[in-house]
Amino acid sequence: MGVCQMKSSQSPIITLLTDFGLDDGTVGVMKGVILGLAPQAQLVDLSHGIGPQDVRAAAIVLGRTAPYFPDGTIHLVVVDPGVGTVRRPMAARVGPHYFVGPDNGAVTRLIEWAEQVGQATSFFQLDRPDRWLPKVSDVFHGRDLFAPVAAHLANGAALEDLGTPLQDPVRLSLSSPVPMPGGLLGEVEYVDRFGNLRTNIRRADCGDRTPAGVRLGWVEIEGLVRTFGERPAGELIAFWGSGEELCVAVVNGSAAARLALSAGGAVELRLR
Amino acid sequence: MGVCQMKSSQSPIITLLTDFGLDDGTVGVMKGVILGLAPQAQLVDLSHGIGPQDVRAAAIVLGRTAPYFPDGTIHLVVVDPGVGTVRRPMAARVGPHYFVGPDNGAVTRLIEWAEQVGQATSFFQLDRPDRWLPKVSDVFHGRDLFAPVAAHLANGAALEDLGTPLQDPVRLSLSSPVPMPGGLLGEVEYVDRFGNLRTNIRRADCGDRTPAGVRLGWVEIEGLVRTFGERPAGELIAFWGSGEELCVAVVNGSAAARLALSAGGAVELRLR
Amino acid sequence: MGVCQMKSSQSPIITLLTDFGLDDGTVGVMKGVILGLAPQAQLVDLSHGIGPQDVRAAAIVLGRTAPYFPDGTIHLVVVDPGVGTVRRPMAARVGPHYFVGPDNGAVTRLIEWAEQVGQATSFFQLDRPDRWLPKVSDVFHGRDLFAPVAAHLANGAALEDLGTPLQDPVRLSLSSPVPMPGGLLGEVEYVDRFGNLRTNIRRADCGDRTPAGVRLGWVEIEGLVRTFGERPAGELIAFWGSGEELCVAVVNGSAAARLALSAGGAVELRLR
Repeated sequence: MGVCQMKSSQSPIITLLTDFGLDDGTVGVMKGVILGLAPQAQLVDLSHGIGPQDVRAAAIVLGRTAPYFPDGTIHLVVVDPGVGTVRRPMAARVGPHYFVGPDNGAVTRLIEWAEQVGQATSFFQLDRPDRWLPKVSDVFHGRDLFAPVAAHLANGAALEDLGTPLQDPVRLSLSSPVPMPGGLLGEVEYVDRFGNLRTNIRRADCGDRTPAGVRLGWVEIEGLVRTFGERPAGELIAFWGSGEELCVAVVNGSAAARLALSAGGAVELRLR
Repeated sequence: MGVCQMKSSQSPIITLLTDFGLDDGTVGVMKGVILGLAPQAQLVDLSHGIGPQDVRAAAIVLGRTAPYFPDGTIHLVVVDPGVGTVRRPMAARVGPHYFVGPDNGAVTRLIEWAEQVGQATSFFQLDRPDRWLPKVSDVFHGRDLFAPVAAHLANGAALEDLGTPLQDPVRLSLSSPVPMPGGLLGEVEYVDRFGNLRTNIRRADCGDRTPAGVRLGWVEIEGLVRTFGERPAGELIAFWGSGEELCVAVVNGSAAARLALSAGGAVELRLR
Repeated sequence: MGVCQMKSSQSPIITLLTDFGLDDGTVGVMKGVILGLAPQAQLVDLSHGIGPQDVRAAAIVLGRTAPYFPDGTIHLVVVDPGVGTVRRPMAARVGPHYFVGPDNGAVTRLIEWAEQVGQATSFFQLDRPDRWLPKVSDVFHGRDLFAPVAAHLANGAALEDLGTPLQDPVRLSLSSPVPMPGGLLGEVEYVDRFGNLRTNIRRADCGDRTPAGVRLGWVEIEGLVRTFGERPAGELIAFWGSGEELCVAVVNGSAAARLALSAGGAVELRLR
């Protein structure tokens, strides 16, 4: 393994998370810029299907995916409604990971994760144009500024050489579940491809109490199951999802369609 | 080339085939887990657009793509309606390829291919939790169990060290064409992006007889053409597709739209 | 960096641009063929969402993305309505880049770019079947012919060893803006994922005159802005896009929806 091991330790991963879609080559342009500067980088798409300008969705997707990447991974996140305005370009160290992108709150959940696991964070405003493309447009900083910075990080540059420390990165106030008599009131965080409702209620939010059921409007679900196979097709179920989040699903069907619920819909968890 | 050659021979390919879609980062999570364990792996997406829980479609896509990959490729296939239930987690050697995924029949066509070309197969039930992620959820074995196993195979682990032999992998009874007076009765296997109808009738099914035409309900096509360019735009044609399968198409148009046919629709091939 | 640098310089990039979509594994097949022949290649998707048979769209996407890739990149472009007919299979050197694909005009914009920056071009008809897959189908030259040729280029093969020079590659007559009293008349080239109208009017087309406003049918936009953030949400704006092309957008909205315009729609730029 000798050579490979050495090589591997020098092939940092850069993930890409944008709202650019996959059809018009925009993501490819960023990859071309990165590979021109850091040909050894390994590029992994997280998603390019974030809703246009939906920074909140980017924060949620980054928070649930980044922790599964190895230490040293660089997350390039460009959902950038404020491109060309005063919003600050940022790079950060968040625990063992790097973040590169506009300072608009997309890093929020990743920071929360680092705080939970007791990891340090540090943030830098990118202000070194000599580390960007020679010409920076007003409308595509993903290509002209953030991709080069991610590549420099992959090449071993220090954050200190790319920007100036900043203390107050933008953090979104992503909703958290609130206590209510007999349980918790949360909301649907997003709907996955299967029509499952993924909520903002985490297993840890229950403390030492036990989940007894779920209520969505006039619909009640008795008890939680461990997995889909415990109930027949078509049945409405609740369970802890892959991120330890409360989920509501229809076995082999779509809970979102059945209940006409989408992101933001109210979900109540009964505890005893 | 010295170093590279060595490196290349140590960079096994892992393909990914799921029904997860590309929007919410779920595929990225599996890639993060793989690259954390096997940073030298080359990841190639086969498709993440398989219909939800459509194991049959996964089997078809795997069967027509896997044979074009080099020997030693590891195919990670997670279309898993039974996650968390008694369906067995499996890894297999199918000819020169590896398969990793739930034992639900997604490997069916790949087995058929290996049998046709006279290659051996061996199957293993994955029962070594020490080779998985420390914590295995009930709802995302792609991340917690199958991705680590694929990574271990990429690192050179033997199947024997990952599980226990099993003799009876699930095989889907994918439809085959049946003889009828004067020809064969088959069905549409899938519709591609161009609206072409790809059927389950293979050129080899004709034996030493010659195709004379195709009938779909009340529509008849006289003769087969070699390729699209032999007929004017808008004309309905039949031809042998890239997998030697009988195809029906509209030149520069959509046969699926013209004929209102989808997967499962009946197709008759006249032979003489 | 020693080993990596050496490795990197031997890992050419192959980009892929097709109209195959991502769902049925067709792109994966091409990647399998490439990696079987050139395992060190780095594969980057430009787009597989080109409209079926839309060679013009492929030319536009290639022209705006390829220049951002490092020298030596190989662009494999398979949008191939004429597969199996007399259209010539081609490989080319276009400035510092390689092009591989059917000779149907998809390379047009890349040639224009090379001419603008004063780079040489050379074109070759692929006529060496010994460098293709052993069996070449009539319907999938992307797999059987173009993918192997791209892999051979990645392995260092010379164009002269893959084909015979040709002098007259097909070039599309992509529209250019035309002078009109007081300005330029152009058209919408494509609509991006945000609903922004990207036109064929380039900043350089203005010469030494200054843009004063844009007219689309009965709608007029006064002046150009530098970026989105200069106007409130919902306002219609015009600006120079990331490719120095005139763009029309609605801040945090869709200009295509607002104006009911799509590719081909007329756009007038007033100059003073």
